Amino acid sequence: MSSILAISGDAWINGQAVRGTQASFQAFDPAQGVEIAPAFYTVDSSQTDQACRAAHAAFDPFRATTNMQRADFLEAIGAQILALGDALIVRAMAESGLPRARLEGERGRTVGQLKLFADLLREGTWQDIRVDKALPERAPPRPELRLRMIGLGPVAVFGASNFPLAFSVAGGDTAAALAAGCPVVAKAHPAHPGTSELVGRAIVQAVADCGLPAGVFGLLTGIGNALGAELVRHPAIQAVGFTGSRQGGVALMAIAAARPQPIPVYAEMSSINPVFLLPQALAARGESIAAGLAASLTNGVGQFCTNPGLVLGLAGSHFEHFSFSVAKALGALPPGVMLTPGIAANYQRGVAQLAGQDGVQTMLEPVASDTCKAFPAVFRTTGAAFLASTTLAEEVFGPATLLVECLDVDEMLAITEQLEGQLTATLQMDAGDLEAARRLLPALERKVGRILANGYPTGVEVASAMVHGGPYPATSDGRSTSVGTAAIQRFLRPVCYQNFDEALLPQALRDGVPGHS
Amino acid sequence: MSSILAISGDAWINGQAVRGTQASFQAFDPAQGVEIAPAFYTVDSSQTDQACRAAHAAFDPFRATTNMQRADFLEAIGAQILALGDALIVRAMAESGLPRARLEGERGRTVGQLKLFADLLREGTWQDIRVDKALPERAPPRPELRLRMIGLGPVAVFGASNFPLAFSVAGGDTAAALAAGCPVVAKAHPAHPGTSELVGRAIVQAVADCGLPAGVFGLLTGIGNALGAELVRHPAIQAVGFTGSRQGGVALMAIAAARPQPIPVYAEMSSINPVFLLPQALAARGESIAAGLAASLTNGVGQFCTNPGLVLGLAGSHFEHFSFSVAKALGALPPGVMLTPGIAANYQRGVAQLAGQDGVQTMLEPVASDTCKAFPAVFRTTGAAFLASTTLAEEVFGPATLLVECLDVDEMLAITEQLEGQLTATLQMDAGDLEAARRLLPALERKVGRILANGYPTGVEVASAMVHGGPYPATSDGRSTSVGTAAIQRFLRPVCYQNFDEALLPQALRDGVPGHS
Repeated sequence: MSSILAISGDAWINGQAVRGTQASFQAFDPAQGVEIAPAFYTVDSSQTDQACRAAHAAFDPFRATTNMQRADFLEAIGAQILALGDALIVRAMAESGLPRARLEGERGRTVGQLKLFADLLREGTWQDIRVDKALPERAPPRPELRLRMIGLGPVAVFGASNFPLAFSVAGGDTAAALAAGCPVVAKAHPAHPGTSELVGRAIVQAVADCGLPAGVFGLLTGIGNALGAELVRHPAIQAVGFTGSRQGGVALMAIAAARPQPIPVYAEMSSINPVFLLPQALAARGESIAAGLAASLTNGVGQFCTNPGLVLGLAGSHFEHFSFSVAKALGALPPGVMLTPGIAANYQRGVAQLAGQDGVQTMLEPVASDTCKAFPAVFRTTGAAFLASTTLAEEVFGPATLLVECLDVDEMLAITEQLEGQLTATLQMDAGDLEAARRLLPALERKVGRILANGYPTGVEVASAMVHGGPYPATSDGRSTSVGTAAIQRFLRPVCYQNFDEALLPQALRDGVPGHS
Repeated sequence: MSSILAISGDAWINGQAVRGTQASFQAFDPAQGVEIAPAFYTVDSSQTDQACRAAHAAFDPFRATTNMQRADFLEAIGAQILALGDALIVRAMAESGLPRARLEGERGRTVGQLKLFADLLREGTWQDIRVDKALPERAPPRPELRLRMIGLGPVAVFGASNFPLAFSVAGGDTAAALAAGCPVVAKAHPAHPGTSELVGRAIVQAVADCGLPAGVFGLLTGIGNALGAELVRHPAIQAVGFTGSRQGGVALMAIAAARPQPIPVYAEMSSINPVFLLPQALAARGESIAAGLAASLTNGVGQFCTNPGLVLGLAGSHFEHFSFSVAKALGALPPGVMLTPGIAANYQRGVAQLAGQDGVQTMLEPVASDTCKAFPAVFRTTGAAFLASTTLAEEVFGPATLLVECLDVDEMLAITEQLEGQLTATLQMDAGDLEAARRLLPALERKVGRILANGYPTGVEVASAMVHGGPYPATSDGRSTSVGTAAIQRFLRPVCYQNFDEALLPQALRDGVPGHS
C-alpha cells in the first residue's frame, strides 16, 4: 500500500486534513471480530462549524461553474475513486464484512452514478429553463420571465452503514448535490471510517485538480449523536441526506424542523417491501419464486433497504408448498456476516420479538450467534393476525421474512391499505392474475415508490426512470428519489428573473444556450 | 339575485350542503363597518372528518381520470365561477373592501389560472414520464423502468384574506391540486365566507356536471384555530396549502411535522421584498421610481405578499430627493380600506412599533384611524441601524415602507446577506449599474424566489416561468411556487413501474401516449 493510501484517521475540512479533538474510535472487522487500526477522532463543534462555513463560502463560486465544469468534476471524482485501486476494496471488505464481488460491484455503481450525473449536466435540461416572452402590447404589459433551478446550498450527507460506497461519502446524495452545484459536508459512518477517508480524499483531490474552492467538500469523522445534530443545526446547511434507521431519521427530521430556518431532510428509513404472490403465479411458479425470494432475502445478508420482509399469498396447498420451499431453501444457506455487532444484535432481537408475537409461527428459526454472523429466519402468520397487530409490520433489518396467509384478494388489499409507506412492492403474477393486480394497483401506487412485476425488490437500477423513495416512513419525503437522475431535484429550487437585460442574465438563461426546453 | 345565488351559510361536504354545529359568525363589511348576513357556522370534528374521508375515497377514481377529463373539469369550474356573475363581485367587494376593478381582475386571474392548468394537462409533460428500456443482454439484465408523477393525495387549502378569489377556494393551490388529481378540502377564510361559499358551490356544481366523485371537493366553514388544526392532522390529508401570517404558517408546519405521518406544508408567510436603488438609476430616474414605488406600495392598500416594504439606496442628494418624493407622493393619497379590522389594527400597531425603533425617522406618519381605513407610512433609517436591529426587517402588512440609506454597495450586500428569505427583490438599475447588480445577484439568488429588474414587485404574472415562492420564511418550502404551471409539482410524487406488462401499465405510461418526453 503506497503512502497516499495509508489511512490517517483525519477529517477533511476546507481541503485540509484535520484531526478531531474529541472521542477516538476505530473501525471493527465483523468477520474477524477485531478492531482495525488506525484510530479516528470525533471532530468538535468548532471543526464542524469550519467545514460548514467553508461550504457556505464555496457555494456561490461553485454554483457559478458551468455544467461542463461540474460534469468534469464528477468524472474526476470517479477516476480518483478508481485510482484508489484494491486498497479501497480491501479496506471496505474489512470494515463491512461484505464480499469482494459485492464491493467491486458497488464501486462500479458509485462511479457509474457520478458518470450518470455528469451526462445529465452535459445535457442540461435539469435546470428546467422556462421562458415567457414579454408581451408589451398586452394591457397591462407582460414583462419577460425566465426561470431556472439553482442549488439549495450546502448539503449534509450522512453515510449509510449498508452501502459503504454507493450510499456514503461519494454516494447518490453527494453526486446529486454536487451536480446541483451544492457543496457537501459528509459525515463518515463510524462503521467504515477508513473507506470513508479514502473516498473523501479522492473527492478532495478532484476538487483541487479541478481548481474548485476547497469548501466544496468536507468530511467529518466521529461517534455519538452530537456531531450529526450540530451539522443539521448549522445555519449554512440547507438540506440533509440520510440513509439509516427510522429512529435516526426521525431525530434528524425533528432537528431540521426546529431550526430557526427549517430545511428539507431526505431520510431513507424503514421499509418491509411487500411481495404479493398472486394465485396463478403461485400455482404455476411457486417453487421458482421461493428460490428467487430466498436469494433476494439473503443478498447482502438481508441488509438492503429493499429487502423483501413481507410475503402475502392466498391460503391453500400452493401457499403451503411455497412456505416450506422458502424455509427449506433458506435453511440450507450458510450464515452471513452482518455489518456491525450492533446490527447483528438488533437482528437477533428483532427475530426473537417476531417469534413471540401472537399468531406467529416460526418456520425457520435462526441459529443464535454471539458473533456478527446471522442465519435467515422465516415466520408465518395469517392475514387476520397481521391486520390485528400493530407490530408485525415493523422492519427487522436482516435476512428475515414474514409469510402471510390471506383469505382472498380483499384481505391482501386490506393489508396493503394498513401498511405504512414502502420503497417497493412486488407483484408475482401471471396472465390470469391481471384482475387481482389491477385491484391492488391503486393502493400500491399510494403506498410505494416502485412497483415491480415478476422480479425481486433488491437490485436498484441507477437510471433515469428509477424511484428509490416512497411515502413516509420509507422516506421522510416521498416527493423524491435517492437513486437515478431525478435525485438532483432534491437539492434544487426555482428562481425567476423578470425583465433582465441580457448582460445581467445568468449565462444558462440566455437565448441559444443548450438546456432550454 | 336569483335563489341559486342566495348565500346559505353552509359548508359543503361530499357534495351536500351541511350546516356547522359550532360557533356562528358573520362576514364584516370593512368599508361600512357592519356585519353582513347570513350567519355561518363552524363545522365540528366529525364534519371535518367526513369531508376528509370523502376526499380520500374520491382520490383513486379522481386520479384515474384522464388529463382531458381533468382539463374539462378545471374549465367547468371557471365557467361556473363566471356564471355567478355580478353577485360574486358584489359579495367580494362587501366582504373585503376591495374595489370592483380589482376583484373583476382577480376573477379573471382565477379563471385564467384554471385555464392555464387545463392547458398544462392537455399538453401532458407535467407527468414527467421517463422510460428506461429493458436491456436483456446486459449482465445482469436491466428490467424496463417507467416513471410517472402521481398526486400526493387529498390537499387541505386555506383561503387567504388578501385574495378572496385568486388565493382562496378556487385559487392557485386548488387549481394545481385538482390538476394533479388530488381532491381538495378547502377552509373558507372567515373574512370572506360568502365569497367562499359562492365559489365553493361553483366547484361543487362542476364536480357534479363532470360526473366526478363528490368527495373531490369539500368546503369547510369556521372560526378559531381548532378547525384548521384538525384538518391538517387528519390522516387522509397529504399536503397543505396556506397563505397568511407567519404565526399561522409556522403553527401549521408544526402540526404537520408532528403527525404520525408528517406531510408537506406550502405556507406563504412573510416577505418585505427589498428594492435596491442602484446609483445611476437613482440619479437618472429617482422621481419616476418614487412614483412607481408609491403606486406599488398602495396597490390593494399594501396588502400584497409582494409589497415593497424595504427600499435601499446609497446616501446622497439623489436619495434625499427620492425619499421626499416618496413621502410626498404617498402623503397626497387618500386612505384605503383594509380587509378586516384585525388587519387594520395590526397595521396601526406595526407602524407605531417601527416609528419607535432606535435610529428610525418617520417621514410620513399615517393618520390614526379607528375604522378599517389606513394611510400610507414612510420611515427612514441607515444601513448601520438596520444591520444592528433584529426587528427592522419584520413585515408590517399594509402600505408602509422603510427607506434605508446605505453607505455603499458593500453595505447593501451586507444587508442582503442578513435578510431572511423573500418572495422578491427588485433592482432599479441603468446601464452603469451593471457591476453593482452583478455583485448583489448571487446573494439575491440565495435569498429570493423572483428577482426583478426595473419593475415593481406587486403584480405576479400567471405564467410558466413565474416563481411566487422563496426561501423561509417567505414560504415554508422554497422548493416550489404557488403561481404558474410549476405549482403543480407541489402536489406530485414519482412512482416507478418495473417490468410491467402493457396490460397492467397505466394508460399514461404506454408507448405512443402524449406527454412522453
